[in-house]
Amino acid sequence: MPSEPRSRLSPEERRAQLIAIGVQFLVDHPLDELTIDELAARAGVSKALIFHYFDSRQGVERAIVTTARDSLLVATEPRADLPPRERIHDTLLRIAGFVRDHSGTFSSLVRGVASGDPAVRAIVDQSRDLNAQRLLEAFQELGAPNELALRVAFRAWVSFTEEALLELVVDRRIDDETVVDFLEKTLDGVVAAAAGARF
Amino acid sequence: MPSEPRSRLSPEERRAQLIAIGVQFLVDHPLDELTIDELAARAGVSKALIFHYFDSRQGVERAIVTTARDSLLVATEPRADLPPRERIHDTLLRIAGFVRDHSGTFSSLVRGVASGDPAVRAIVDQSRDLNAQRLLEAFQELGAPNELALRVAFRAWVSFTEEALLELVVDRRIDDETVVDFLEKTLDGVVAAAAGARF
Repeated sequence: MPSEPRSRLSPEERRAQLIAIGVQFLVDHPLDELTIDELAARAGVSKALIFHYFDSRQGVERAIVTTARDSLLVATEPRADLPPRERIHDTLLRIAGFVRDHSGTFSSLVRGVASGDPAVRAIVDQSRDLNAQRLLEAFQELGAPNELALRVAFRAWVSFTEEALLELVVDRRIDDETVVDFLEKTLDGVVAAAAGARF
Repeated sequence: MPSEPRSRLSPEERRAQLIAIGVQFLVDHPLDELTIDELAARAGVSKALIFHYFDSRQGVERAIVTTARDSLLVATEPRADLPPRERIHDTLLRIAGFVRDHSGTFSSLVRGVASGDPAVRAIVDQSRDLNAQRLLEAFQELGAPNELALRVAFRAWVSFTEEALLELVVDRRIDDETVVDFLEKTLDGVVAAAAGARF
């Protein structure tokens, strides 16, 4: 096993490189298969060096999942210049595109990050909450009241959408516009249900 | 640490007792906190005895999650004597009741069983698939075609429902009829969306 870095990198560069290797690993593997041995071998560094940067395997996992999650969030940031309906459509198209182009990473985030570490789960849940919040903002612009039922509906619909994207885009490669059309129809359906909720 | 069983039990009884203690543990804790040490202490047996029955910690976890999942499935088995709409309503009411009465177990199954073990995830996914299949059968009785869009919609709606139950029943204790009314409306919404899907 190599015990020296392949090249001279600053601490920040080295840390970023290790995280990038981990994110790349998620493209083809679930997170729990990423051992420190594996990461060290792929990076060409010693295990001791990895523990120097991350303290623990949990620290490595959290950094990798945070970076993967942020890559999804940045790629699907809503375009504030668009009116709400068009903004939702555009955002969903970019989410579907990200899922198509990075299906391993998306699967790892949704499914594979069945990590035993509650902190890792919380990292992914933050992006779910943010996506639900983005929807709430768009629908409030459309005049929907900021009610509990709508909040619950959006948060649950984010989970609905993850499942649908896994099935339609990752597994079946159905084209993005067709998938987004379906998702928008289900979104309208749950918004209508929320409007009629008795809580 | 105690090294002898508290009482004479048959192997089947002992194994069932250990699983029952594990399922009880899930009421208040996520699965990943259940160490073999903890289970041995609660059961008053040696760690060696536990490994005699289950081979590995993974084996323990799989047996516990399977039993917890089956307790949910049995408690929410659809009543075949009811017509489809009433059957769905009755099943959802019993699911909501189970979640209210066993909120720790339900949370553990949906959230806490963020186990690193893909087999554990698969055990919970089987119940999701079964619930989606039950919905498909009810809606086929109502005349809905057995189409891909409907299958995808039901599987995704099961995830929607898990999130909504966590928020509405576990966290907010909203009454079962109100929650089920909301869920039925969202179900109709996604069924209508599936009917208009272009795939």
